[in-house]
Amino acid sequence: MIRVVLLGAGNVAIHLARAMQVSDNIELVQYYSRSLENSSYFDPEIKHTDNLNNLDEADIYILALKDEVVEEFSKRLTHVKGLVVHTSGSLDLNALSSLSRSGVLYPIQTFTKERSFSLKTIPFGVECTNPEDIKLLKSMASILTDHPFELDSQARKRIHLAAVFANNFSNYMFTISKQLCDDNNLSFDLLKPIIKETAEKINYMSPEEAQTGPARRNDHMIMETQEAQLNSDLREIYRMISRSIQNKYNQH
Amino acid sequence: MIRVVLLGAGNVAIHLARAMQVSDNIELVQYYSRSLENSSYFDPEIKHTDNLNNLDEADIYILALKDEVVEEFSKRLTHVKGLVVHTSGSLDLNALSSLSRSGVLYPIQTFTKERSFSLKTIPFGVECTNPEDIKLLKSMASILTDHPFELDSQARKRIHLAAVFANNFSNYMFTISKQLCDDNNLSFDLLKPIIKETAEKINYMSPEEAQTGPARRNDHMIMETQEAQLNSDLREIYRMISRSIQNKYNQH
Repeated sequence: MIRVVLLGAGNVAIHLARAMQVSDNIELVQYYSRSLENSSYFDPEIKHTDNLNNLDEADIYILALKDEVVEEFSKRLTHVKGLVVHTSGSLDLNALSSLSRSGVLYPIQTFTKERSFSLKTIPFGVECTNPEDIKLLKSMASILTDHPFELDSQARKRIHLAAVFANNFSNYMFTISKQLCDDNNLSFDLLKPIIKETAEKINYMSPEEAQTGPARRNDHMIMETQEAQLNSDLREIYRMISRSIQNKYNQH
Repeated sequence: MIRVVLLGAGNVAIHLARAMQVSDNIELVQYYSRSLENSSYFDPEIKHTDNLNNLDEADIYILALKDEVVEEFSKRLTHVKGLVVHTSGSLDLNALSSLSRSGVLYPIQTFTKERSFSLKTIPFGVECTNPEDIKLLKSMASILTDHPFELDSQARKRIHLAAVFANNFSNYMFTISKQLCDDNNLSFDLLKPIIKETAEKINYMSPEEAQTGPARRNDHMIMETQEAQLNSDLREIYRMISRSIQNKYNQH
């Protein structure tokens, strides 16, 4: 049984807490948060504290906090004996350098507290300062996911950047398309089947092969007509992405 | 029974042919294509012709052709008595103005011949020059899909533009993320769960609400670090989309 204390009550913390609660081999002994704002998302059986001096003993302390506070926050945990890990895709392991036993547990996923899903299929990158801690962190991660793997800070930042394109930016393309629907009194529901297929397709072919559309075909007439329908901000985005697609497919 | 002749043998034609073949109320009597290149994707029972003078009689002729050839091609169909429709999102109905009975049957989906799926959930926009033809086209569309609806050329172009963002551009974001994985010897499979969740999330919340990431949080430090990892083309795309997200979320 691996004893865990969770620090944070945001989207990542809530998802990790749910997964640990249903596992037989992890005991989530306590969670820390300053306020009880999100307490309804946590099982009432999990003890809560808002005082870092009252942290229970545990094998692993998980800091599921905003990137910008992790380093300062970790300086208040020097009294802790267990392994302390953060969950950020972009923070260096060194952010925890004030601690003797530190690591990273990075789930490659986008979390929203209102959504609930199994973590089993989600890749978790793990990294530790001390080689002996890797075994502990990996065995803990392997309880949560079928895909734990070692990932150093450099590679983690790369995958996080790739995830920004894969998730943040693709979602923003959905936002723009919804905006265009709203502006023209068309239901965004009309686009849901094509969005579903866009995501499913990449399990059967590479996104390079899946690319379609006016820029892929180098269809200048349609691109000009479409640009003319956009305001200046969106036109810039349309042009830049189209030009990049054209360069990729039509100059080789 | 509605009799249909299909003209074209590309991705859209192949998907329409499959759906018509399994329907009880549409008889796909013939398909036309210049070559037999994609004939393996068509049921051998469907008659083929490469001669427009040998077209069978039908209620509806579907031109599933490249946008740029539709208008010229339609001028060779003036001898046809049935309703002639194209399937393009961006071509005006007027592209068929040399014909007395013309229309549009636009499925809002991205089609690849290697993929196979039901058309039932896919919205089909329909439009006709003659009001009396709308009934015929709508009843034909309603055999293929549960979501046929009238959509004029103006609105169709808007939804097609929205679909360029929702599909073409989001897929290109996947392509960039795969490129970043490849460049760093990281498997693109690591991002498949997050891409799946990105698409599924919008069924539970709007993409505006689903937006996460450094630009959404206005996290300048991470954005600068990430920009520095990109080549100049990708950096421009990263900056422009990030700036647009920042403007949307951080100035209101």
